[in-house]
Amino acid sequence: MSLLQNPVMRAEIVSVGTELLLGQTVDTNATKLGEVFAEFGLIHTHRQTVGDNAVRLTEALRLALSRSDLVVTIGGLGPTEDDLTRDGIAEALAESLVIDEDVASHLKNLFKSRNIPWTESQLRQAQRPPCAAPIPNPNGSAPGLICRKDGKVVVALPGPPNEFNPMVDGPLRSLLQEMGDGMIISSRFLRVVGIGEAALEAKIFDLLSLPDVTVAPYAKVGEVHLRLTTRAESEAAAESPLRQVEDQIRERLGDAIYATGNLTLPGWIVQELSRHKATVSVAESCTGGLLGAQLSSIDGSSAAFSGGIIAYLPTVKEDKLGVSRHTIECPDHGSVSARCAEEMAGGVRHSFGTTIGVSITGVAGAQPIVENGVEKPSGLVFIGVAGPTGTGSHRHFFPGNRETIRKRSVQMALVSLRMKILEVLGS
Amino acid sequence: MSLLQNPVMRAEIVSVGTELLLGQTVDTNATKLGEVFAEFGLIHTHRQTVGDNAVRLTEALRLALSRSDLVVTIGGLGPTEDDLTRDGIAEALAESLVIDEDVASHLKNLFKSRNIPWTESQLRQAQRPPCAAPIPNPNGSAPGLICRKDGKVVVALPGPPNEFNPMVDGPLRSLLQEMGDGMIISSRFLRVVGIGEAALEAKIFDLLSLPDVTVAPYAKVGEVHLRLTTRAESEAAAESPLRQVEDQIRERLGDAIYATGNLTLPGWIVQELSRHKATVSVAESCTGGLLGAQLSSIDGSSAAFSGGIIAYLPTVKEDKLGVSRHTIECPDHGSVSARCAEEMAGGVRHSFGTTIGVSITGVAGAQPIVENGVEKPSGLVFIGVAGPTGTGSHRHFFPGNRETIRKRSVQMALVSLRMKILEVLGS
Repeated sequence: MSLLQNPVMRAEIVSVGTELLLGQTVDTNATKLGEVFAEFGLIHTHRQTVGDNAVRLTEALRLALSRSDLVVTIGGLGPTEDDLTRDGIAEALAESLVIDEDVASHLKNLFKSRNIPWTESQLRQAQRPPCAAPIPNPNGSAPGLICRKDGKVVVALPGPPNEFNPMVDGPLRSLLQEMGDGMIISSRFLRVVGIGEAALEAKIFDLLSLPDVTVAPYAKVGEVHLRLTTRAESEAAAESPLRQVEDQIRERLGDAIYATGNLTLPGWIVQELSRHKATVSVAESCTGGLLGAQLSSIDGSSAAFSGGIIAYLPTVKEDKLGVSRHTIECPDHGSVSARCAEEMAGGVRHSFGTTIGVSITGVAGAQPIVENGVEKPSGLVFIGVAGPTGTGSHRHFFPGNRETIRKRSVQMALVSLRMKILEVLGS
Repeated sequence: MSLLQNPVMRAEIVSVGTELLLGQTVDTNATKLGEVFAEFGLIHTHRQTVGDNAVRLTEALRLALSRSDLVVTIGGLGPTEDDLTRDGIAEALAESLVIDEDVASHLKNLFKSRNIPWTESQLRQAQRPPCAAPIPNPNGSAPGLICRKDGKVVVALPGPPNEFNPMVDGPLRSLLQEMGDGMIISSRFLRVVGIGEAALEAKIFDLLSLPDVTVAPYAKVGEVHLRLTTRAESEAAAESPLRQVEDQIRERLGDAIYATGNLTLPGWIVQELSRHKATVSVAESCTGGLLGAQLSSIDGSSAAFSGGIIAYLPTVKEDKLGVSRHTIECPDHGSVSARCAEEMAGGVRHSFGTTIGVSITGVAGAQPIVENGVEKPSGLVFIGVAGPTGTGSHRHFFPGNRETIRKRSVQMALVSLRMKILEVLGS
């Protein structure tokens, strides 16, 4: 992404909070911010984490300011004695804190409207260095801060993710646009399934080093996301170069791209099924409900997802899904087999009266199982899909521990379900 | 935890990897290491994160060494040109890298035994500063390093969690013991459910500042974990003070403590049911399989967990669980009601022939639902439990988004299931 870098913009994160050092909290905020910095092509070479201590915070900020143009702090903006980020920033910028009267009266009104008793300590949240402008916080009480001094910018963001994330996506992104050279940064995500990261990179290798559009792959569980980014004078001007590269990628990857933007694979499935007034049910063995949990994680999924059977025991596969005794007991098949997966998918589809039925059966335990005299290794998983165009199954082998095997099983079941939806309903 | 601190031991983490700064990887390793530092009572006030760059890594190490006795690096130990941690450490310690012949021949044998062609670049992993001793890595190729110079210790650990975690729990813990004053650090975890963190702290407030045993609460979703730690001359000598505090806590919290050590709540449930040859089945509406996924996440859970019904639609509640039409359609009840939860729990218990049946029904969507003319708000959840001693339900209200509501629903269903197990099977 070298060509996106604005050579004058170096950015650094200072994460603040003793809980981060004690290992009580994982710093996912810094990860998110790093992704945004990368998207804007900023040079981002260091991150510091310090506890709730004003002296150490001031030192960290001075070090950051000595090598970066933009310093963003995360956390330490609350009303308690431990919330020292405002103090640290003021000290590092050689300023004294003042009360922002607008913020103070906003806070008092907020407390009144929520019927929470006002205490003077809340006023800490209205403090700012004179060089700072507050960033409104619609999701909490403490505002963020944008401090500009001597050509440097210090931004203070709150730590709770429900306050942090909107402030990054709104005001911070606007600031990064404004701090740039007048050009805007425009991005889009292509979401790819059914092809590994290495194979994908091989297919689009030449597109990973284009002069005007950066293409960055992010590997996820069973998916790869491609971020296309360009700099342009306007969103309209960015459209053409992004579209051109997207078209080239689509030509090479075809159906493997299931969505652009924020639509997840379960989201795509629920959207497509709902749009066609079609439904799905699930029959799960080794995943024990994880596939249903994924589908039902989407708000509004009840239009497309009817439910299913968790058939953790072979007897449940027979009783509730109509898997035949022969399939369960035959050495050629068994409860972990292609035929069992197909009978499970067909059984749940029939029982729930849905357009499509999906099933998962496999060995997720650390040890292989032996059924009907045949050993089935850990990681062997069959995924069945039944629909109006017929019933089929895929055999998979997932190395890894129980959690990995189950997650990949669910992901591949979603991929198989997607292929069936394309086959049955069209795209 | 101030009394555990050994005043001469200051520790600092330097996380290495451009992927951490780009936001492609969350630094969970540093979180884990922070927890271990806290457990050993080390003074831990800074963390640095740098990319794969030898100059910046060396600078970060020099800064860390200027203020800490122990510096632990994470990542950058692989065989590629980007793996520069060994180079950075050598430079910061003013040493030159040498090849460790034992490690080199171990690597060659490893590659031979795995039938992987040997390339000379792999030899980078055998390099070390002369002051360093390698830490064997049974889960990967690159060894860790313990470097001792001028009274300072630098430890280099690999980044992949499956290599990092065992190296922390084994060799690093041993080193921390050894670097101490001859005293050992002994800890135990008490796992608490069914009582919030604030209420719990109020009950054991006086025990949070004892002179010899530190008690640190860690809030998890629907649980609190208490870590009891003491310093003693031996594990045997630690037993008595830890036991004394544990007894006091048990006296105050009683049944709320469900386990000590690493046993999770689903793990406890599977263990207790298996021990009594009892079984459970689930009927899930708004959680869509998440409860079954939790129970089946335990290796060996098939002895205790038979499966269940994902009854995402009201018709499925009737057809598969025998919930009465009256319950679904009556304004006093509906599909989100105590009676529906109880009928679901009883229905799945009957249908699957298990000792206990557990159900969840509620509103996880962002919008309230209206059924039979009655509005049910987002976050309203009923959990039903049916067993040989009878059937009951609990009404909950969980504020938050869809994910939070579903997670807390599952956690409270596990808590209710635990209470039923205690009631039916005894403790």
